[in-house]
Amino acid sequence: MLVESPIPSPGQGEALVRSIYLSVDPYMRGRMNEVGSYAAPVKIGQVMVGGVAGQVVASRDPLLKEGDYVAGEIGWQQYGVAPAAALRKLDPKIAPISTAVGILGMPGMTAYFGLLDICDPKPGETVFVSGAAGAVGGLVGQIAKIKGCRAVGTAGSERKVDYLVSELGFDSAFNYRAVTDYTAKLRELCPNGIDVYFDNVGGAISDAVFGVINAYARISICGQISQYNLEKPEMGRRLLWDLLVKQAKAEGFLVRQFVDRWPEGIKQMGAWLAEGRLKYHEDIERGIENAPRAFIGMLNGKNLGKQLVKIADEVFPHTILSL
Amino acid sequence: MLVESPIPSPGQGEALVRSIYLSVDPYMRGRMNEVGSYAAPVKIGQVMVGGVAGQVVASRDPLLKEGDYVAGEIGWQQYGVAPAAALRKLDPKIAPISTAVGILGMPGMTAYFGLLDICDPKPGETVFVSGAAGAVGGLVGQIAKIKGCRAVGTAGSERKVDYLVSELGFDSAFNYRAVTDYTAKLRELCPNGIDVYFDNVGGAISDAVFGVINAYARISICGQISQYNLEKPEMGRRLLWDLLVKQAKAEGFLVRQFVDRWPEGIKQMGAWLAEGRLKYHEDIERGIENAPRAFIGMLNGKNLGKQLVKIADEVFPHTILSL
Repeated sequence: MLVESPIPSPGQGEALVRSIYLSVDPYMRGRMNEVGSYAAPVKIGQVMVGGVAGQVVASRDPLLKEGDYVAGEIGWQQYGVAPAAALRKLDPKIAPISTAVGILGMPGMTAYFGLLDICDPKPGETVFVSGAAGAVGGLVGQIAKIKGCRAVGTAGSERKVDYLVSELGFDSAFNYRAVTDYTAKLRELCPNGIDVYFDNVGGAISDAVFGVINAYARISICGQISQYNLEKPEMGRRLLWDLLVKQAKAEGFLVRQFVDRWPEGIKQMGAWLAEGRLKYHEDIERGIENAPRAFIGMLNGKNLGKQLVKIADEVFPHTILSL
Repeated sequence: MLVESPIPSPGQGEALVRSIYLSVDPYMRGRMNEVGSYAAPVKIGQVMVGGVAGQVVASRDPLLKEGDYVAGEIGWQQYGVAPAAALRKLDPKIAPISTAVGILGMPGMTAYFGLLDICDPKPGETVFVSGAAGAVGGLVGQIAKIKGCRAVGTAGSERKVDYLVSELGFDSAFNYRAVTDYTAKLRELCPNGIDVYFDNVGGAISDAVFGVINAYARISICGQISQYNLEKPEMGRRLLWDLLVKQAKAEGFLVRQFVDRWPEGIKQMGAWLAEGRLKYHEDIERGIENAPRAFIGMLNGKNLGKQLVKIADEVFPHTILSL
């Protein structure tokens, strides 16, 4: 439901932001359920939540001035007000501002801390990633390579598999839509077993991965996108026995638990990006009216890399508002 | 199958042990499968593996002498030979020798390291234990109490529930055979949720517990006894989403991974035992021919506390063998 309403005015300590890129992320699906999980659901009629990269058009805080590029939780709207302290100032000379909701933002920090902190991958180990061609998964595999691991992933099309291996440098990958025996495929592509599993998908892929993990495997539960749109919960293979006999750990995380350490993560990811050791791809939809389509497409795996919705030009000729 | 065979002779560096107490433990069920898990299966015709508390009747190693009480991996037999270095010398003045396969042996170390190392329980937290009236579970609840936690458990009879609360000091417990809605019962007995789950059982109990864990819960996967005798694997509720939204950890372990630290664990458990802060119960079957019955009974939950099979007297009049 698209609604037109007056552009809000920033209060003391706040800034008005013109949204340029809306971030579209799998976690948003959880906010659309009636039952809350780790966060309250978005109610019908409320602005849909979400990260945005945009530009300050008016500020009532000395931290920010008109024209500054910022990232923050503005949601799916063309203009939004936020406390200046909750907006992260961006330098468009360092990296395109869209990266602030991608590789140098929430998805990047998810990959960085979810892989390195939860799983502590060691050189020579095999890291397997589900949802490998998404905004997070593609970074996980590349960080694994930087750490000297074998990176293997799965994704939902031949194009994505090719992208993972040819563009991002994964050692191997497979199209789960074209494979019926996941276990056999995992054994083929991970001949030394799986030491680290970064799970974005859950379901049948995870059932198979748990069956081939090595002793002392570490499993990072980042997402379960295969389960989000089910009408009723799916039953599955019991996985705790695998953890027991393999002395393995599975740990869920939310990127916000690392929020105090984002500066560290952004610095390191930015350095790897500048060195050419990390690549990313953006799928950009245009127009706020197409955000729902982009979101649904992403849940169905239509995107390659980070899904964005561009709703305004990056360079804005002039301030349109006088407050 | 009971087989009579000549009593073996110890080689250089070995000792011959007369078994007094055979230990009967859930993990043994896994050794009876054709497919190995973390250890090779016991083949038909081989001596069944297992811990034993017994007495040295002949030694060809300076570490041990005739008459010494020892614990070791002798298996289900009246006499067995083992390297002296693999036998743990016992002092029957400190504690009954049966404790060497119980509270001061493998089950005790399982409870100690599986709770403290894997879950790090904090004062005021709620610790829930499945299989709470078994050799391991009863100790887990008591250690949780020592650490200032609320200890709640489940077991399979009213007698066991009474034992947990009245004898071992659990704050609360329930009989899972008399309850249909585990989730409601857990919410009733754990009004502040569950911070630590020590799982011996798996299956429907774990399905319910995962649904009521708190943020940053730690789950120790020690056993899955509900699953061992199924003819085909059971399907269940998918649990990874619970880990994700609760930023929780589930970790499997085998007590042998802590083998280097057993002295620390035995010292601490022995101290708590001497101070009267830990209690234990033994269910003792008699006669080696009844070991299978005791084992099957334990898998079906007939035991209270540690299941033992006593196959010889503790005090032996005279050495019967000259080598």
